[in-house]
Amino acid sequence: MRQAVDLKKAYRLLNHGPTVLVSSSHGGQRNVMAAAWSMPLDFEPPKVCVVIDKSTLTRALVEASGEFALNVPARALAAATVAVGSQSGRDGDKFAELGLATFAAERIAAPLLEGCVGWLECRVIAEPHNQQRYDLFIGEVVAAWADPADFSEGHWHFAPGRGRSIHYVAGGTFFETGDEFSVS
Amino acid sequence: MRQAVDLKKAYRLLNHGPTVLVSSSHGGQRNVMAAAWSMPLDFEPPKVCVVIDKSTLTRALVEASGEFALNVPARALAAATVAVGSQSGRDGDKFAELGLATFAAERIAAPLLEGCVGWLECRVIAEPHNQQRYDLFIGEVVAAWADPADFSEGHWHFAPGRGRSIHYVAGGTFFETGDEFSVS
Repeated sequence: MRQAVDLKKAYRLLNHGPTVLVSSSHGGQRNVMAAAWSMPLDFEPPKVCVVIDKSTLTRALVEASGEFALNVPARALAAATVAVGSQSGRDGDKFAELGLATFAAERIAAPLLEGCVGWLECRVIAEPHNQQRYDLFIGEVVAAWADPADFSEGHWHFAPGRGRSIHYVAGGTFFETGDEFSVS
Repeated sequence: MRQAVDLKKAYRLLNHGPTVLVSSSHGGQRNVMAAAWSMPLDFEPPKVCVVIDKSTLTRALVEASGEFALNVPARALAAATVAVGSQSGRDGDKFAELGLATFAAERIAAPLLEGCVGWLECRVIAEPHNQQRYDLFIGEVVAAWADPADFSEGHWHFAPGRGRSIHYVAGGTFFETGDEFSVS
């Protein structure tokens, strides 16, 4: 299930540093890869950064389409996150091979992944020097969504079941998003 | 306590997306601020990104010195993280006001904060367009350290006591780094 997230609050989907899945589409091809290196860049209009290596099919699709989506996977998608991070979309459609269901985005052509807790639809703000030298892409968030069981009215309240968002370390090891706490 | 982290493994101190404290120093002034918006940018030589707003004293010190440190606070420093993120260093020395102890970095002049679980000493790679337009700074990691009770031989194994690393959301609310798990 999904509910629109106010664009002013969209940064909160990424502020705690979860690993994301980058989905993209161009000219009849679609792809998805994992990215631990992403972050919010601005509040309003919301912007994000993500590192997309030159060797990836995602890179070609993002550069050709000028769009990408950041999908925030729940722990139940951790194995899929590792799989889409190790296979290349050039060897076949990862969605089909891994049985990953998708639904249509609203403002971009890239598919969004079922089973995630949040989604950010982004348009690339072209910065050729960053892209070429650092593999660094900047996107403006043009629509944002969350599963209301996990995030609503600007706040996370992860539902039991599929697990919370996840934070990749290395070698197939993650941390799950842990206890929430507040300081005054 | 601190132990050198192999620069090839330095990205692992940030890969799970913790909130960091940015420390800086120039011309007899020093400062520390909180930043939820940082990420690794490359493995070798290791690079990082961090967003530093134009209004901050940190911005002035980082631009003048060409250096900064990213300190990864444990949960015991969560209240201090909020405090250094809401006060300005222009109103007085935050370290003294908040009783934050420091120790000397090895390769840069910025002080490092006691009570953190990891530290990255960084030199700015000048990218004036990114800095001016996006408040986005890129740094090369020139030295990295971790408390061996929490991170050693490239792996996190947070010690009980001070708590794990933390992930800021908004309004004084954080998530603690949660359960570690692996998928094959």
